[in-house]
Amino acid sequence: MSDGKKIVIIGGGAGGGTAAQFARKTDRKSKIIIFEKGKYAQYSKCGLPYTISKDIDDIYDLIEFSNEWFLKAGIDLKLNSKVEKIDINKKKITVNKDNKTFDESYDKLIIATGAKPSIPPIKNIIENDKIISGVFTLRTIDDAKNISIYCSKSKKAVIVGAGLIGLELAESLYKNKLKVTVVEALPDILANTLDKDMSKIVFDNITKFVDVITDHIVTRVESESGKIKKVIIKDNKTGKEKEIVSDIVIIATGLIPQTSLAKDIGCKLSNKGYIIVNEKCETSLKDIYAIGDCTEFINFVTKNPTPIGLGSIAVRQGISAGINAAGGSYTLLDGVLQTCTSRFFELEIAAVGSCNDKLIFGKFNGSSLPDYYPGGKQITIKVFTDENGKIMGAQAVGDNAAQRINTYAAAILGGLDIEKFRKLETAYAPPVAPTLDSITLVCDIISAKLRRR
Amino acid sequence: MSDGKKIVIIGGGAGGGTAAQFARKTDRKSKIIIFEKGKYAQYSKCGLPYTISKDIDDIYDLIEFSNEWFLKAGIDLKLNSKVEKIDINKKKITVNKDNKTFDESYDKLIIATGAKPSIPPIKNIIENDKIISGVFTLRTIDDAKNISIYCSKSKKAVIVGAGLIGLELAESLYKNKLKVTVVEALPDILANTLDKDMSKIVFDNITKFVDVITDHIVTRVESESGKIKKVIIKDNKTGKEKEIVSDIVIIATGLIPQTSLAKDIGCKLSNKGYIIVNEKCETSLKDIYAIGDCTEFINFVTKNPTPIGLGSIAVRQGISAGINAAGGSYTLLDGVLQTCTSRFFELEIAAVGSCNDKLIFGKFNGSSLPDYYPGGKQITIKVFTDENGKIMGAQAVGDNAAQRINTYAAAILGGLDIEKFRKLETAYAPPVAPTLDSITLVCDIISAKLRRR
Repeated sequence: MSDGKKIVIIGGGAGGGTAAQFARKTDRKSKIIIFEKGKYAQYSKCGLPYTISKDIDDIYDLIEFSNEWFLKAGIDLKLNSKVEKIDINKKKITVNKDNKTFDESYDKLIIATGAKPSIPPIKNIIENDKIISGVFTLRTIDDAKNISIYCSKSKKAVIVGAGLIGLELAESLYKNKLKVTVVEALPDILANTLDKDMSKIVFDNITKFVDVITDHIVTRVESESGKIKKVIIKDNKTGKEKEIVSDIVIIATGLIPQTSLAKDIGCKLSNKGYIIVNEKCETSLKDIYAIGDCTEFINFVTKNPTPIGLGSIAVRQGISAGINAAGGSYTLLDGVLQTCTSRFFELEIAAVGSCNDKLIFGKFNGSSLPDYYPGGKQITIKVFTDENGKIMGAQAVGDNAAQRINTYAAAILGGLDIEKFRKLETAYAPPVAPTLDSITLVCDIISAKLRRR
Repeated sequence: MSDGKKIVIIGGGAGGGTAAQFARKTDRKSKIIIFEKGKYAQYSKCGLPYTISKDIDDIYDLIEFSNEWFLKAGIDLKLNSKVEKIDINKKKITVNKDNKTFDESYDKLIIATGAKPSIPPIKNIIENDKIISGVFTLRTIDDAKNISIYCSKSKKAVIVGAGLIGLELAESLYKNKLKVTVVEALPDILANTLDKDMSKIVFDNITKFVDVITDHIVTRVESESGKIKKVIIKDNKTGKEKEIVSDIVIIATGLIPQTSLAKDIGCKLSNKGYIIVNEKCETSLKDIYAIGDCTEFINFVTKNPTPIGLGSIAVRQGISAGINAAGGSYTLLDGVLQTCTSRFFELEIAAVGSCNDKLIFGKFNGSSLPDYYPGGKQITIKVFTDENGKIMGAQAVGDNAAQRINTYAAAILGGLDIEKFRKLETAYAPPVAPTLDSITLVCDIISAKLRRR
């Protein structure tokens, strides 16, 4: 298998770093180079909000694989190295480091260029092509450090966007004793993750700690002497404006895939601008793989194109691309399950698969323990099936939402239908779980619905 | 569906009570009678140890469905009513209540007679056919009440048997400030539930709180003036005896099915003496169903006969027998998964399926959270597959063992193999779960083993 090939990876994030590791495991003799435009070795982006909250003491703990680690593994990690061009005919790339450019050849190329924060059209936040002081996005270690510093001299914050990151940041800033207001353009929070009725449970919990204003867009920011003073928001329905006094603004309104390198070489992109990859992370171009936030694959359930957008999937793609680029063979599942979770103010949420309003659904509100045992916590589960009862997706809010949703992920992977899954024997013991867990009780509701049809 | 039939249930435990409820749901006009020899309505036997520990304040909270509840549901619950005989030709049973006997006819009969504690041959514990004062088994509310009373005047306890109930009791008595010694005849604790290497984790934890002596049998108990003073145990290997000073002895060495009624009418029993039932809870005799601890069904994975022995399965059988007896149709899964869990001194364990040493296995020791996030707890998972990689069983000790094992239960139900399951996207967020959960990482070990074969 070892033919001393040269594998070049653009981007040293979770996907790129993992790809390098698995390429190395697959072929001990290959030459592996990662070009990372940032200054840090492979770290967890998902951990960044928890450095601001101080749940994680030392931000550098997020670095999961250090420069030394890569060195030992025989992987050449080049930091501060921006790839400017790919030449697919000559199989080489042009790299800019310290304002000098040089070429590097490759046999196999892995594009892991990720995504950058999307910036909505808010007036007064861009000056000289740069975001003004006091307005932040969160994507890198330096972003997190800058937010932490700015927080320490701030009292009030506005977070733009009530998605996963927005709400994680809301908690982080609350823990910094800031008065936090989250502004969401859509009528509901977490709209990409949960149904309205499910996200309502989260809304009711987080609004005990922070203000959340939905169905409003942020129109402009007003500053005085270089300091932010107010954020002006507009009601989507009435058009009425109001102002929120604030010292700091954090924008968390999603990501834009960084695909200009891929686009320039004619790599097939989706309508939404993501690099289209298959279950081996191959792109439309020979010897070129792509992984992570810059890519799009199909959804396991619907088979519809789905942007990746989750670190957990980027890592799995990294495994696949790394092994395949190095001459091994690793095929991902036939689509992404999009299993995801987070926790806001002690309340856990999770979701998997496809949950849309054309499907049959059932919802159940249960307890994590039998009624007679003290300390039971609420768990709400909503499950979606097609008209034959095949499980398509699930959402959970409350006790052990993530692990409960993992069971649904396995059910979807196994192609289980609701009639079989509702008979699943779940583990029962009074201090641990009830005789019949909510994950199966919810199925009885769907089963009854299906029989009535 | 409603033909006003008469459904008689022998035994008002979790299985019998559930059967009555689902029979009522299925046929609103049927006459339903439960004959229960004890004096309490449907309660949770599994909760009993936690009344002794005082985790549950009021023992009567265990009564999940009261006499009034059954009355309202139109179910005739007869307590203190022992069924003495079944006449299958005349389709009637003979009941003894308050030393008077009477007959009751039936159209459909559900036998839910359960099991009674098995008593090992320990010298001096039986007098006049009764267990002496100070020696207990735990099976009923009155047993738990008596143990609690006796504990309050005791300082030292011996528990015979280190299975689930024995260890649950060990913790309960420890919480009553007793010095507890658990004596187990087998070389390992929890031998019916976990492999030696897995139960070792539990052993190392519980022995911080209580003494555990394995590979010893209890030979006799010595009393003075009607009070227990010592328990004599014998080393299985050396035959050497030693004594443990103790005020109270609790026997938790398993159960014997109560099947004499079924045996008398020629109902097919297994070699081990359990009533053999199918996926509809039908016995070998027409119109007679059986459920719960007195029955045996097949294992979902091995298809070998398997005594039920779990309240969670008894309830599911109750659903099936109740619906079927009332004229509906409910088929259980094609075997029992035997998903089970418990928790001892904060350490959770769980298991599912078939875990035997002829299978391929992998074991993984992971953390519940990413390394960089504080507070991660240990989780150890051992998974078993056949030689084609098909998942047969799993065991877990540590963080969220039960919910993690539920995911394996779903995997087994879906017939997943290790190559597919290891690619399962599990939910990831730093404060909730790691990028790659131990439930899939353990599969990589098995996958590598299978490839090397």
